[in-house]
Amino acid sequence: MDVEVLFFDVLGTVVDWRGSIAAKAQLFLTRHQIDSVDAEVFADAWVGRYDAAVEVVRAGERDFVPLDVVNMENLKACLDDFGLAPTAFPQAELEELNLAWHRLNPWPDAIEGLSKLKQRFVIAPLSDGNTRLLVNMAKQAGLPWDTILGADIFRAYKPMPEVYLGACELLGVNPERAMLVAAHDYDLDAARRCGLKTAYIHRDHAQDPSKADSPRLSGEWDVTAGDLIELAAVLR
Amino acid sequence: MDVEVLFFDVLGTVVDWRGSIAAKAQLFLTRHQIDSVDAEVFADAWVGRYDAAVEVVRAGERDFVPLDVVNMENLKACLDDFGLAPTAFPQAELEELNLAWHRLNPWPDAIEGLSKLKQRFVIAPLSDGNTRLLVNMAKQAGLPWDTILGADIFRAYKPMPEVYLGACELLGVNPERAMLVAAHDYDLDAARRCGLKTAYIHRDHAQDPSKADSPRLSGEWDVTAGDLIELAAVLR
Repeated sequence: MDVEVLFFDVLGTVVDWRGSIAAKAQLFLTRHQIDSVDAEVFADAWVGRYDAAVEVVRAGERDFVPLDVVNMENLKACLDDFGLAPTAFPQAELEELNLAWHRLNPWPDAIEGLSKLKQRFVIAPLSDGNTRLLVNMAKQAGLPWDTILGADIFRAYKPMPEVYLGACELLGVNPERAMLVAAHDYDLDAARRCGLKTAYIHRDHAQDPSKADSPRLSGEWDVTAGDLIELAAVLR
Repeated sequence: MDVEVLFFDVLGTVVDWRGSIAAKAQLFLTRHQIDSVDAEVFADAWVGRYDAAVEVVRAGERDFVPLDVVNMENLKACLDDFGLAPTAFPQAELEELNLAWHRLNPWPDAIEGLSKLKQRFVIAPLSDGNTRLLVNMAKQAGLPWDTILGADIFRAYKPMPEVYLGACELLGVNPERAMLVAAHDYDLDAARRCGLKTAYIHRDHAQDPSKADSPRLSGEWDVTAGDLIELAAVLR
């Protein structure tokens, strides 16, 4: 297929945001002796606000703000929803909880799979996360990226085409020689419209609660794999 | 000093551009049986055109073009200067020679020094090179960057302040918590004006022939070191 660069969706595809954020939320709730709130329900509610929050940026109704800012706004709204006044907590504690997004745990196959893929391809995340969030995550988890492309480089959120096309331009590659690897149909569909190749990774928990209402696209992707180690075998 | 991010000048500071380009130029000249041209003189002449070529971008007289494009234009002009018509060579051969910039060899201390510094700091190149050039260089040489920031991200060349300030913004760090590591006074001086800390690395061959006429600034830098391993020891 003559692909030389692999871009990766990160949240859900490379790391388990749902489990990681629920675990950090549990620590926060326990520390504050709040046992009326289920940490997994809280995590889903927090992430559930994500899509609508960035949609106003996509629609040009709000200037670009990085995901760290979006996440903090959503965290406060979410606490409110659960009857917990954000002002009742020290700001430093909220910031610490917000950093849960910088410390998401990779899926068990991610590091081995990426390391194999790196031998043959240039590998880079292409994520709605901001660059520092992705840098911290990679450093903590040992994700062996060649470079990191956060949404703040393009000042746009997926599936806006300038993200995919801007990434190809920075990596000096024609779109048909780049491939997006993702566990989400809408992301792959947008990449394909920009001319990139597509690889679908099946993740049981990839479903984004903020996109529960989105239609599932009948994707005919270039490659499908169960995880990143399998992807490396398929692309060998 | 409370620094968390180290930015590195690359050409001259981390890699030996002069020796690397002269070696690739020698291969090219030998293949074409041109023995009237000294490869080191040719390399100096090629790089010597660099500063004037990007100055028109800095001055706003030309839209940003990535270093790969600047280097190719300069290569052709340089061949002309040496009495060699660029059109006498296959374009693919000129492109191959231009890729010498993607394959510059690190100074002997660079990988060990960067690996040590990476344990404590976020480390990233901040270079006039374009992102793909820096990615290829890192991949070939094994430079262990956390992420890579090419001039094409900012569409500006150093010492334009938007490069230093843009890099700090992407890495989510206030300038006073970032440090530029460089072997060139003009670069450190510009970083300091933007509020960054500065580390001067002494490189015998760092002198850029394109800047031979620049005044040497009497730098009082925050840190001075003989190489990157020594820098890691100083910043421990």
